[in-house]
Amino acid sequence: MNQPDTSTPIIDKLTIVGAGLIGSSVALAARQHAAARHITLVDKDVSTLDEAKSLSIADDYVSDAVKAVRDADLVILAVPVGAMSSVGEVIAPELKKGAIISDVGSVKNSVLQALLPIIPAHAHLIPGHPVAGTEKSGPSAGFATLFDGRWCILTPPEGVDVQALDKLTAFWQALGSTVEIMTAPHHDLVLAITSHVPHLIAYNIVGTANDLETVTRSEVIKYSAGGFRDFTRIAASDPTMWRDVFLNNKDAVLEMLGRFSEDLTALQRAIRWEDGDALFDLFSRTREIRRSIIDAGQDESAPDFGRKH
Amino acid sequence: MNQPDTSTPIIDKLTIVGAGLIGSSVALAARQHAAARHITLVDKDVSTLDEAKSLSIADDYVSDAVKAVRDADLVILAVPVGAMSSVGEVIAPELKKGAIISDVGSVKNSVLQALLPIIPAHAHLIPGHPVAGTEKSGPSAGFATLFDGRWCILTPPEGVDVQALDKLTAFWQALGSTVEIMTAPHHDLVLAITSHVPHLIAYNIVGTANDLETVTRSEVIKYSAGGFRDFTRIAASDPTMWRDVFLNNKDAVLEMLGRFSEDLTALQRAIRWEDGDALFDLFSRTREIRRSIIDAGQDESAPDFGRKH
Repeated sequence: MNQPDTSTPIIDKLTIVGAGLIGSSVALAARQHAAARHITLVDKDVSTLDEAKSLSIADDYVSDAVKAVRDADLVILAVPVGAMSSVGEVIAPELKKGAIISDVGSVKNSVLQALLPIIPAHAHLIPGHPVAGTEKSGPSAGFATLFDGRWCILTPPEGVDVQALDKLTAFWQALGSTVEIMTAPHHDLVLAITSHVPHLIAYNIVGTANDLETVTRSEVIKYSAGGFRDFTRIAASDPTMWRDVFLNNKDAVLEMLGRFSEDLTALQRAIRWEDGDALFDLFSRTREIRRSIIDAGQDESAPDFGRKH
Repeated sequence: MNQPDTSTPIIDKLTIVGAGLIGSSVALAARQHAAARHITLVDKDVSTLDEAKSLSIADDYVSDAVKAVRDADLVILAVPVGAMSSVGEVIAPELKKGAIISDVGSVKNSVLQALLPIIPAHAHLIPGHPVAGTEKSGPSAGFATLFDGRWCILTPPEGVDVQALDKLTAFWQALGSTVEIMTAPHHDLVLAITSHVPHLIAYNIVGTANDLETVTRSEVIKYSAGGFRDFTRIAASDPTMWRDVFLNNKDAVLEMLGRFSEDLTALQRAIRWEDGDALFDLFSRTREIRRSIIDAGQDESAPDFGRKH
């Protein structure tokens, strides 16, 4: 792998389709690290595009993806997973020879399968997923350091062009990420447990709490510092994006959810039968994973995520 | 309710039994706000007591609770819920006339029922629960501002002495908290959904992730920024404390857990049948609760809890 060279941008013309949190952050990070000479930001929503423009996120702002991808050396699709296929169909005929087409979607196999038959042979399809984000949405939520110290997973199809893969790898490294390469199905299994199921159960408990008759909504809010508030952050994430994640990673999510529910039923039984030892054993084991995550630089060691007190 | 008067401490002699995160924080906050003239910290564990001493958390450090409560005007039990009864039995005969005895346990009805027959009629039993904490444990984890802007719930028995209740209320207000009074069973229902079930499902998913064969532990750690890491914070909480919570709030936890599982099964079905509208509806509703929690000052509005990026 080449180390990024800041004197010559890795990418000459970068086009990002979708000016949301991730698309805007890619633009900001690419500029900050001089990883692209010219950045075009595309969004079909005029108000989103205007917002991005007012923040000077890119060099060019275009509502028509067709025009924007014509000269691009790297096209990154930053739209909800469910929209990848239709955006892909629109831009595919316009891609120049040698262009790299990638994305930032949280599901990879459905994106790979949707785009593989569409993208012309003279362009290089390499789906990607920077494992980073916040619960906020839109261009104003973007920031340049979002990918710093995070992992970016690339899931190239078989027979990928090695130079194209090296170039995309160098691009994400320049943005501060460590790149890992794996198959799309394995990505979807890993992310089902580290991201998709956590989001689902967070959405779920917030819904459950909202629907109670015996506890008021005001009580739920007041006493949320007991732990509940942590879940509301994740449950404030973009609804369209997450609907698409679950529709497009159905099998892996259902498999991991089945295991989660099985384990939860065992815990429920331990509570009903007052098996304190079983509870204590689990609660002791789980501490270690937290420590490993902090040691790996993937979370704050400060108490309570470093929240102000 | 009287506003705290900083010129005369609300409490003359305060004894805190248990020098963990909460007990130490009560001592530090009481001193910072001059809410008690003299603070005695009790812990039967000598190394914990030495640690508290080295941090100058209190005025006195005692390993024998019997001696420490004799002159106390307010005794706060800051031990795991399962230890309340045995500590109560030891100190009950020593309580002076008019002493207030309270606690900080996360479950209230079992504490009330355990202590009510033990505490002599000449003392005032008023169980309490400051809804605040972090995932850390021990004296060095304590800090003076932990209760600032948080709620403290008091669950007095019927016929409680009004002056004693006012005094304990003023004490918590002096520490920066807003005091709410409710019945112990209602407290347990509210906290089951805002704290106990969230902890249980956090512990559970961390356990599930740890036990997978298809995804390695190293992958779980690397890609935890996709959402999973949020759950590991809560799942790093004190195992003894949380075992006791579930053993002592069994009925309310099982009720709320039943609802959570029912709702999760409906979500699982929506994913299996690709009911995108049902998913989108829930994911949109849950955003509002997050907003209300931030508006109520119960969490950071900064993205990602204000984590550094």
